[in-house]
Amino acid sequence: MATIFFEPSTRTRLSFESAMHRLGGSVISVSDPKSTSFAKGESIADMARIISSYADIIVLRHPWEGAAQLMADYATVPVINAGDGGHQHPTQTLCDLYTLKKERGELKGMTIALWGDLKYGRTTHSLIFALAKFGATILFCPSPGLEVPDNIMHKLVTEYGGELEKFSKSHKQNQKGAFPVDAAYITPEQPHQLTMMPGIDLEVTMKAGVDALYVTRPQRERFTSEEKAADLQFPIVDQKLMSGKELQRALVMHPLPRVDELAYDMDADPRSMYFKQAARGVPVRMALIALALGVKKNTKPDEAPVTKVDYPVYNREYGVKCSNPRCVTWQETEKNYLKPQFKIVSLKPLTFRCIYCEHGTEPKYVASTEWHQGTTGEKRYNRANSHLAKKIRPENLIAFDSAEEAEKHGYLPGHYAQSQAVEEKPKNE
Amino acid sequence: MATIFFEPSTRTRLSFESAMHRLGGSVISVSDPKSTSFAKGESIADMARIISSYADIIVLRHPWEGAAQLMADYATVPVINAGDGGHQHPTQTLCDLYTLKKERGELKGMTIALWGDLKYGRTTHSLIFALAKFGATILFCPSPGLEVPDNIMHKLVTEYGGELEKFSKSHKQNQKGAFPVDAAYITPEQPHQLTMMPGIDLEVTMKAGVDALYVTRPQRERFTSEEKAADLQFPIVDQKLMSGKELQRALVMHPLPRVDELAYDMDADPRSMYFKQAARGVPVRMALIALALGVKKNTKPDEAPVTKVDYPVYNREYGVKCSNPRCVTWQETEKNYLKPQFKIVSLKPLTFRCIYCEHGTEPKYVASTEWHQGTTGEKRYNRANSHLAKKIRPENLIAFDSAEEAEKHGYLPGHYAQSQAVEEKPKNE
Amino acid sequence: MATIFFEPSTRTRLSFESAMHRLGGSVISVSDPKSTSFAKGESIADMARIISSYADIIVLRHPWEGAAQLMADYATVPVINAGDGGHQHPTQTLCDLYTLKKERGELKGMTIALWGDLKYGRTTHSLIFALAKFGATILFCPSPGLEVPDNIMHKLVTEYGGELEKFSKSHKQNQKGAFPVDAAYITPEQPHQLTMMPGIDLEVTMKAGVDALYVTRPQRERFTSEEKAADLQFPIVDQKLMSGKELQRALVMHPLPRVDELAYDMDADPRSMYFKQAARGVPVRMALIALALGVKKNTKPDEAPVTKVDYPVYNREYGVKCSNPRCVTWQETEKNYLKPQFKIVSLKPLTFRCIYCEHGTEPKYVASTEWHQGTTGEKRYNRANSHLAKKIRPENLIAFDSAEEAEKHGYLPGHYAQSQAVEEKPKNE
Repeated sequence: MATIFFEPSTRTRLSFESAMHRLGGSVISVSDPKSTSFAKGESIADMARIISSYADIIVLRHPWEGAAQLMADYATVPVINAGDGGHQHPTQTLCDLYTLKKERGELKGMTIALWGDLKYGRTTHSLIFALAKFGATILFCPSPGLEVPDNIMHKLVTEYGGELEKFSKSHKQNQKGAFPVDAAYITPEQPHQLTMMPGIDLEVTMKAGVDALYVTRPQRERFTSEEKAADLQFPIVDQKLMSGKELQRALVMHPLPRVDELAYDMDADPRSMYFKQAARGVPVRMALIALALGVKKNTKPDEAPVTKVDYPVYNREYGVKCSNPRCVTWQETEKNYLKPQFKIVSLKPLTFRCIYCEHGTEPKYVASTEWHQGTTGEKRYNRANSHLAKKIRPENLIAFDSAEEAEKHGYLPGHYAQSQAVEEKPKNE
Repeated sequence: MATIFFEPSTRTRLSFESAMHRLGGSVISVSDPKSTSFAKGESIADMARIISSYADIIVLRHPWEGAAQLMADYATVPVINAGDGGHQHPTQTLCDLYTLKKERGELKGMTIALWGDLKYGRTTHSLIFALAKFGATILFCPSPGLEVPDNIMHKLVTEYGGELEKFSKSHKQNQKGAFPVDAAYITPEQPHQLTMMPGIDLEVTMKAGVDALYVTRPQRERFTSEEKAADLQFPIVDQKLMSGKELQRALVMHPLPRVDELAYDMDADPRSMYFKQAARGVPVRMALIALALGVKKNTKPDEAPVTKVDYPVYNREYGVKCSNPRCVTWQETEKNYLKPQFKIVSLKPLTFRCIYCEHGTEPKYVASTEWHQGTTGEKRYNRANSHLAKKIRPENLIAFDSAEEAEKHGYLPGHYAQSQAVEEKPKNE
Repeated sequence: MATIFFEPSTRTRLSFESAMHRLGGSVISVSDPKSTSFAKGESIADMARIISSYADIIVLRHPWEGAAQLMADYATVPVINAGDGGHQHPTQTLCDLYTLKKERGELKGMTIALWGDLKYGRTTHSLIFALAKFGATILFCPSPGLEVPDNIMHKLVTEYGGELEKFSKSHKQNQKGAFPVDAAYITPEQPHQLTMMPGIDLEVTMKAGVDALYVTRPQRERFTSEEKAADLQFPIVDQKLMSGKELQRALVMHPLPRVDELAYDMDADPRSMYFKQAARGVPVRMALIALALGVKKNTKPDEAPVTKVDYPVYNREYGVKCSNPRCVTWQETEKNYLKPQFKIVSLKPLTFRCIYCEHGTEPKYVASTEWHQGTTGEKRYNRANSHLAKKIRPENLIAFDSAEEAEKHGYLPGHYAQSQAVEEKPKNE
């Protein structure tokens, strides 16, 4: 196994290496990117092919979002994502899920409260979708100003279905409860959904009790100056908080390292799972490595109640660029080895999702290959939010980030290329 | 085995890792603390618990004095100290002892001269107590200004017994001998002690010959500007020095790396042990790891003629702070996970020894739980060097670093709380 | 195996470590020289002796040229050179040769074109001699201003025999061919040589086709400002170039990493060998380690048609210093552990080759031990290019870099100590 870490990490790297040793394998490792020749401008694609010839499996941590996907595209051995920028940290999520399942039997129907820095903590971003996939109810309890980013909330509802509701600070439950809940998400299979009751009843949910409180560290190294100022209010999880009725049987989870958001008075509490979570990083990663190497077969059917949607793909090499500048598709060294590729996840508003970093992008203009069959004079572009957009079949869709981009490729403004204000009643139609 | 090195080291780390591999085990390693998440303000206690779940044994090097002790407190697997700041480097001492024993048969009665930088060289600090414990005579031959720190000399005499004598430069032996001896230490069992002869006869000792000359490198990176100026006089051990009569059969030892204090003309000399010492680092550490892991049992009784004193313990959470600012008890991140704890090693002057870094601390004021049974108005503090101090039983002792500290905890000045000058004749008693 | 890397490297280190693991061995590693105690001024000789006691084989990368030779002098286990400054990178050359042999059957008579940065690319420097040794024809196709250094060309002709010819840009073949050839080298055994045809017929050679194009990366980190300016012209190897008739069956090789000198459109081309070259780094190094450890014996006789010349050795400790300031012989820490030693590779001009870094040095003055038998008044020095120099037998030769150096050692100017201009007709002879 090659552990290639382009960002500082000890916990993740050591637990992967321990897992491989315990399976009887050997490890080659790059833990300090500064002392590697990989800094000389080599592409991830080249690295992938070379390291594939040194090792039977690759574990990659990289600051660019989507880097693990790109490495997997070119490697001839399995690649495990050990964290790619702010995008994902899936093996941490596996440890979290394993702990929840081990302690509580099953994930479906559980109520998990996410606590703290939900804006920058990538472990929660991965966890949210996993919880939704396995049918858990999620309570969002962010530190003020550190709410889950909109694009994640958006993906949650559009892709996993279910219901998301926001609660104000003055909500009855938030006034009396031990801690304020900013929002809640319930998957489609939840009982109240089946009985067609509208909305989420926060009081009922809280009364049933929280199954786990997932605490996160303030990622102070990424805070803006405003967020630094608000940091004083970062809430602390301690015995006092945990004595609240709703939390009486809640597992306390944390991806670690903690700083001071999780009081040491919780360490001996039987509800505290964080050291177990870390310890389980070894067997979970052993299982993953064994599975990826084909040493063990996955004999269980996928139990997840939510099935992934098969979105149509947009893979023209021009017109649209991922909106996330930290995406691997923006990197100069990689441009030859990948082409932007998107899933068309929504038509109104027209929304693409990058297959590398999974960020959403909303193209401004569209055209259709059908519109200009025959003469190039018919190559017209129109606004993506015009009614014409929906009429284009995915395989015919051509999208553009800007009018300049469209015209560069030989398209002329169509009837609905003008500003949005006049859209609904076009003069010339 | 996890080798966790927070300070640069190659020799020690590589020899530990080689030892583990030769035993058939595997190694996970952190060799560059800058590229670890351990720098993010995580406590040693948390690290201990997490790494315990990754590895079966931990080897730690850390700049904070007492760090290995703290990690051992929280780890659930054995922890080996591979150097904690200026405190100890016990596995180096094991290699030194093994070499002496292997070459000379037994340590008792041997005469070992310590040479060079005895102030900053932590390897000699560990070695001094080991030599005393096993009954060797120690000659101190420091480079000028780099004498052994007082607290070590003090501990040597008070804890190991025996006799310590200082010799001036004008001492007869120092005038005629090949090299000047600054001080000498003889353990209680030495023959001359048994015959009740007062003092140490340096000439007789030297005539018998030195068994080993333990050379150390000037730790120039820690020198003050004064010490840097005096550095020009740093003595060199070479064939010329070693041709002296006293050194004719002396082993030449050095913990390495050397710079220029040990001439290369000694390399081929059969008395030179330094490369053997380094080589023996592997089998010695193999033995230690096997012992710590329970693979081998220690079947030999402890042969050390000196038994350790069981000092009473002072473990109140207030009043006294370790005097050593590099001690792990001073670290902000650790404050929740340890409480200052001291051995009461002397009553006059009242001296505490930190159980983490082993530095001595002399509290200025004392009180007793007996003095104020009943009313708090009787809570009084007095000077630690007043005659009252000795009357307090250890289990009742309350000590304070300062009058402010005492008063903060509700104590009022007692009769003997005034300045030392008036102590013996208190007006109001 | 100990992998000790004092310079950044990932590819080489990982492939060595992978090789050792695949052989069933273990690895201890130093990959970040900054976090080692080796930086404290320890000599390579001391390191060699110590690491020898930790490992059964050492792999060293070091910025000082000749460092691996010095370590091998003192280590008691085999030492493999994984790159010593700009001097050599022999295991890369082994991978290159193995790939050529594997793909083409044998090296003798093959035509290999070296392409790109032939000035700073140490891999090509090692390869040139290996190709010459095994009888290949070499075409030099440097990027303008990045020609092979003169001393390498000089060594090639003087030591390996054969013929070297330069071709101008206006040469007929360079005008019509797909790429310009700056120079060509043919080994003594080539057919045209046997038939005593004078010169190299570039057109015939090119018509026969190139067997391999060895592409190198512009080592921009070492470029002078002039070279940076010329860098814009760095030629790119792509499908267009490779469609040239001469290259139709040419293997495309590259030591990697590449930046942009080798187009990604070649990646899927069956002629492209660069990823195979990298992959073969593991088995080649496995073979080398097994051979060095005595696990496998070399049962094949050396097939190289060129036998190495046994030059006389100059090993006086004074008078001459290697001309290469990056040579390990210049390093303060090493001065006690090595003495400058040279092979006398030429008498006119008198040329020494350092046994460590292999750089050439031309001493300015000479003397002979024969000249002053008896009286010291006869100790005279003369210019190295005077006719007297050739008359001195190697075992009697004394050489000096300067007149000052000669006079410092008690020599006086002889008849031929004056300036070169007057040499051929000395007044006083």
